[in-house]
Amino acid sequence: MSLDPARLQPMANAIRALSMDAVEAANSGHPGMPMGMADVATVLFTGHLKFDPAAPHWADRDRFVLSAGHGSMLIYSLLHLTGYAAPTIDDIRNFRKLGSPCAGHPENFMLDGVECTTGPLGQGLAMAVGMAMAERHLNTIYGDDLVDHRTWVIAGDGCLMEGVNHEAIGLAGHLGLGRMNVLWDDNRITIDGATDLSTSEDIKARYAATGWHVTECDGHDFADIERALQEAKADPRPSLVACRTIIGKGAPNKQGTSATHGAALGAAEIAAARETLGWTSEPFVIPSDIAADWHMAGEPGRAAHGAWAGRLEASEHKAEFERRMAGDLPEGFSLDAHIDGLIAAPQKIATRKASEIALGAINPMLADTIGGSADLTGSNNTLAGGIGTFNRDNYAGRYVYYGIREFGMAAAMNGMALHGGVIPYGGTFLVFTDYARGAIRLSALQHTRVIYVMTHDSIGLGEDGPTHQPVEHLASLRAMPNLLVMRPADAVETAECWEIALKQADRPTVLALTRQNLPQLRLEAGESLSAKGGYRIKSAVAARKVVFVATGSEVELAYACAEKLEAQGIGADVVSMVCTELFDEQPDDYRADLLASDALIVSVEAASTFGWQRYTGTTGLNIGLDTFGASAPAGDLFDHFGFTAEKIVPQILNKLNA
Amino acid sequence: MSLDPARLQPMANAIRALSMDAVEAANSGHPGMPMGMADVATVLFTGHLKFDPAAPHWADRDRFVLSAGHGSMLIYSLLHLTGYAAPTIDDIRNFRKLGSPCAGHPENFMLDGVECTTGPLGQGLAMAVGMAMAERHLNTIYGDDLVDHRTWVIAGDGCLMEGVNHEAIGLAGHLGLGRMNVLWDDNRITIDGATDLSTSEDIKARYAATGWHVTECDGHDFADIERALQEAKADPRPSLVACRTIIGKGAPNKQGTSATHGAALGAAEIAAARETLGWTSEPFVIPSDIAADWHMAGEPGRAAHGAWAGRLEASEHKAEFERRMAGDLPEGFSLDAHIDGLIAAPQKIATRKASEIALGAINPMLADTIGGSADLTGSNNTLAGGIGTFNRDNYAGRYVYYGIREFGMAAAMNGMALHGGVIPYGGTFLVFTDYARGAIRLSALQHTRVIYVMTHDSIGLGEDGPTHQPVEHLASLRAMPNLLVMRPADAVETAECWEIALKQADRPTVLALTRQNLPQLRLEAGESLSAKGGYRIKSAVAARKVVFVATGSEVELAYACAEKLEAQGIGADVVSMVCTELFDEQPDDYRADLLASDALIVSVEAASTFGWQRYTGTTGLNIGLDTFGASAPAGDLFDHFGFTAEKIVPQILNKLNA
Repeated sequence: MSLDPARLQPMANAIRALSMDAVEAANSGHPGMPMGMADVATVLFTGHLKFDPAAPHWADRDRFVLSAGHGSMLIYSLLHLTGYAAPTIDDIRNFRKLGSPCAGHPENFMLDGVECTTGPLGQGLAMAVGMAMAERHLNTIYGDDLVDHRTWVIAGDGCLMEGVNHEAIGLAGHLGLGRMNVLWDDNRITIDGATDLSTSEDIKARYAATGWHVTECDGHDFADIERALQEAKADPRPSLVACRTIIGKGAPNKQGTSATHGAALGAAEIAAARETLGWTSEPFVIPSDIAADWHMAGEPGRAAHGAWAGRLEASEHKAEFERRMAGDLPEGFSLDAHIDGLIAAPQKIATRKASEIALGAINPMLADTIGGSADLTGSNNTLAGGIGTFNRDNYAGRYVYYGIREFGMAAAMNGMALHGGVIPYGGTFLVFTDYARGAIRLSALQHTRVIYVMTHDSIGLGEDGPTHQPVEHLASLRAMPNLLVMRPADAVETAECWEIALKQADRPTVLALTRQNLPQLRLEAGESLSAKGGYRIKSAVAARKVVFVATGSEVELAYACAEKLEAQGIGADVVSMVCTELFDEQPDDYRADLLASDALIVSVEAASTFGWQRYTGTTGLNIGLDTFGASAPAGDLFDHFGFTAEKIVPQILNKLNA
Repeated sequence: MSLDPARLQPMANAIRALSMDAVEAANSGHPGMPMGMADVATVLFTGHLKFDPAAPHWADRDRFVLSAGHGSMLIYSLLHLTGYAAPTIDDIRNFRKLGSPCAGHPENFMLDGVECTTGPLGQGLAMAVGMAMAERHLNTIYGDDLVDHRTWVIAGDGCLMEGVNHEAIGLAGHLGLGRMNVLWDDNRITIDGATDLSTSEDIKARYAATGWHVTECDGHDFADIERALQEAKADPRPSLVACRTIIGKGAPNKQGTSATHGAALGAAEIAAARETLGWTSEPFVIPSDIAADWHMAGEPGRAAHGAWAGRLEASEHKAEFERRMAGDLPEGFSLDAHIDGLIAAPQKIATRKASEIALGAINPMLADTIGGSADLTGSNNTLAGGIGTFNRDNYAGRYVYYGIREFGMAAAMNGMALHGGVIPYGGTFLVFTDYARGAIRLSALQHTRVIYVMTHDSIGLGEDGPTHQPVEHLASLRAMPNLLVMRPADAVETAECWEIALKQADRPTVLALTRQNLPQLRLEAGESLSAKGGYRIKSAVAARKVVFVATGSEVELAYACAEKLEAQGIGADVVSMVCTELFDEQPDDYRADLLASDALIVSVEAASTFGWQRYTGTTGLNIGLDTFGASAPAGDLFDHFGFTAEKIVPQILNKLNA
């Protein structure tokens, strides 16, 4: 569809009207960005974006990411105007009210057509990189017939200042993701005022330096916008289109100022804007000719979708493609055979190594995985199973060298998972979840299946010292809603954790894995015990007076403590608490049986004790580390910080005798 | 001092020898970087860096930051060779062993001469920006006579890929910090292999795009290094010197490969390196002529220090300058008068507003503060007290527009605090502590007095929705060692928290502040009750059966609940738990008195309940929010998520009757 400016302008003004009216009704929100980018978005949606409003999950749709998520009324307007089932005009009337899918920031779990949840700046752009990666990868497998779409981003100045955008564009430039196009809302205004308050950066030169194609346009000139988008599509590199815009365009007295950024315009200014825009309809009413033009915007996409559906029907890959895009695992997928092998030949290995072995089994039988590491491949043990390198010369590869870009990696993984068809996993040290935390939170909030392979999970890291030793990280991640944090104790639990993580279609997992070797404690085949989150791995022999609740490398230590207690006639259970979140989901009686109320509950974890009192109560004992670590060989550190049976058992005896 | 290459080369080789031998003895560490940058560092330390080994705290020394902290043997070698009291050669022999100040990564709290703790990549460079800011600011006050030094950084490819470095260089370029020079170890190797595995960036062009001067040199040609450093010093912009180096230079079979990056070279390769370098001394022995040359390197600094001391002695600013550099507050500093004013005229205001009012009192009487915000000035209420803007035209200003760079802001604040003479504070939304978390951890680890003004501290944020509403953040920050997390309940507590935070010379504080208005609960003058961390703000009238432990905006709610209970003859205390860390430091009897063992303890906080069981036990009640929030007006959200007396009191009655 290619409309003349005379018809495009009223369409763009419909976005402006809805945006200013919705923000006014809510008396909160951000009118400036939707009004400023209305013209660009209109050209994009009427002439370039491939979408079918009737089929928002169509696998081969272009992905549109509003990275400047505060401008949410832009996407709500577009989805409504082009004829998506939601949001309805009532949803828009209820913008920012409880229950409306038109939330303050766009949320993928509230509305089809919102590809990802944005608002935390820079991350939309960084997720788009992952979407573009997934697209190119699936294209190599399924060909242009099934996978051949673009990823479009609207980003603001805030997005382009955040560190994560730098990591993301570095990755996109390196990987040559030519089908990714970023439309920068170059309005030279941030919340605090003019951008020159805080930046002097030549953004175009910076993008060019990272391998991007850069062009620009007058963001209020339809022909110029069209020219720039054509140029962006034609260039084989990822493209930045600097769209010179006026924030709040159409509000005659406030436009071009930060006053339009994050507050309602007010009745007087809205009246003036209606005058300026020639918009005479009542609030939330779209004239029928404009509505009809907007409905037409989806026509090319509807047609393309129909043709695509025919190609899918005829494809030999249909079943597999549909399975992958639905996020299902292959029928009967299981690691049972792998685990049987581990049981048959017990090994004393680090759980990071056990993870590598598990990946050696997983990757060949599960084509969906795309692994990687933020430049710690040999430490995270994330490369296994004969997967090739994913790069611009080989998008079929399934291993990504993300570089020293933890946040960018995590955000890209979110984007891949949201795109669908792939299951991303990636590694760094557990302590550097701090660098990626903004994206881990968006994994949890967006319900994405992303698997974080976080190795070197305690002072067991040793000599690298406190900057590299996680202490508070397990607690801080367990506090996050909808995130599974798993800390397996041996090779068998590690394999079970991988299987559980892969089967979580709607939540992310952090695997916390050791650097140091651990004995194999699980020596019998059977059901996945880790699936219950926590389970009794060793039962008391003498009358039970103590229950150890330990995780990961400290389960071995709990065994040693239990042995000493049993030698004195004091019975002790050991519970391996692989994943507190899964344990908390078990029935009350299961949990009460493990955490026997007549026993002294002792938590043992080489990490902050914060949070363990919910299992031990205030009368139990918490063996942990509430200070930063130190630099020394791991064994010396465990001794120094009190993680030996010799130092723990007397504390237990004191407590029992008190 | 300007030595000829024939004398510089053995000096550089002394660094190489110490580095490879120390790593070999530890059987862990990173020899590649110190060996690769030995020549550059030798030129820097012998001809450019202003330092006095006998006075590592000399205020006007140049600051040297080893941002690529894994190459810690470089700085240990330099400090030892130039004659600092520590590390001794035995300290170096014990590299990476328990108790040695030569930790795996350089730690400012272990060794004088280590200006900041590095290892988490990119942050050294970002902290250096803060150091350079503090230097320029103090220069405007005290003049060249007292403050006139440079900030030098050695950074690796990892540092230059991390997002935080992008934020940092954007800030430094914008602020025109010409006395900051970054020496980039351009060795084209990362842990995973060649840099072209993960990046195609033209780093020099990127730096130039952000307003930096860029030059390059052969990092193994002394004359060329000298030329580049001269050029860097002469240019008024901050400078990037791309030092083309060979990683592990001197190890003939492994140099130039990632094999030298993070592992001992091994006996055979060390023997070969000795041959190559012509190094015949035993391990850890430095020939006396080389040692003498190295000792001479500090001579110009010693002389400069002497002259400077004379100027200080003669300066009218001596006392104030020394006070500020020592980190002391002015004699008798207190907010008592401000608090008396609050008591006299109670207000219902948001605690972010109360913070602004407090800053209006603090900033005029405490010249040390440098405030700022990551582009949320009007929301964080951080600009108060008539402080001007800090920018390239006015380094005397005390307010920094950090832009949308939370991580860069936090790291810069660390650098300012480490530099000394200033007390930095800065704001963003509490939820975006996630973006800055890597730096907040380094605040805590490094014992820096940095004050994080984190507003919009719960679902009380309202319409912006779950991406902007903190849930797990209070818990996750409380789990971090050596960090004070304060959540004041009204204007008086807010002022008390500010005073406490300013008086913490050796730890950082997070102030969690509301968007929404809160009534003033504290109506009587007296001692700082917040200083105890938690205190009884309301005592039961009827016989006490319940103790509410609440924070911030939920103290008001606890009052409402208590009132309903009292109406039924059930006595209820309310404890305002302003800061759990400070509360935990109180004597046992104080804590036991507040958390009465015969009462039902009820925690009330509009955030994750994770961790509250340490006060409530498993038999208490935890009122909180263990899911993500939603987008709606704040009042609707508090009701929706159960934060009303109507919804809480029945739960308490059930519990009491159970």
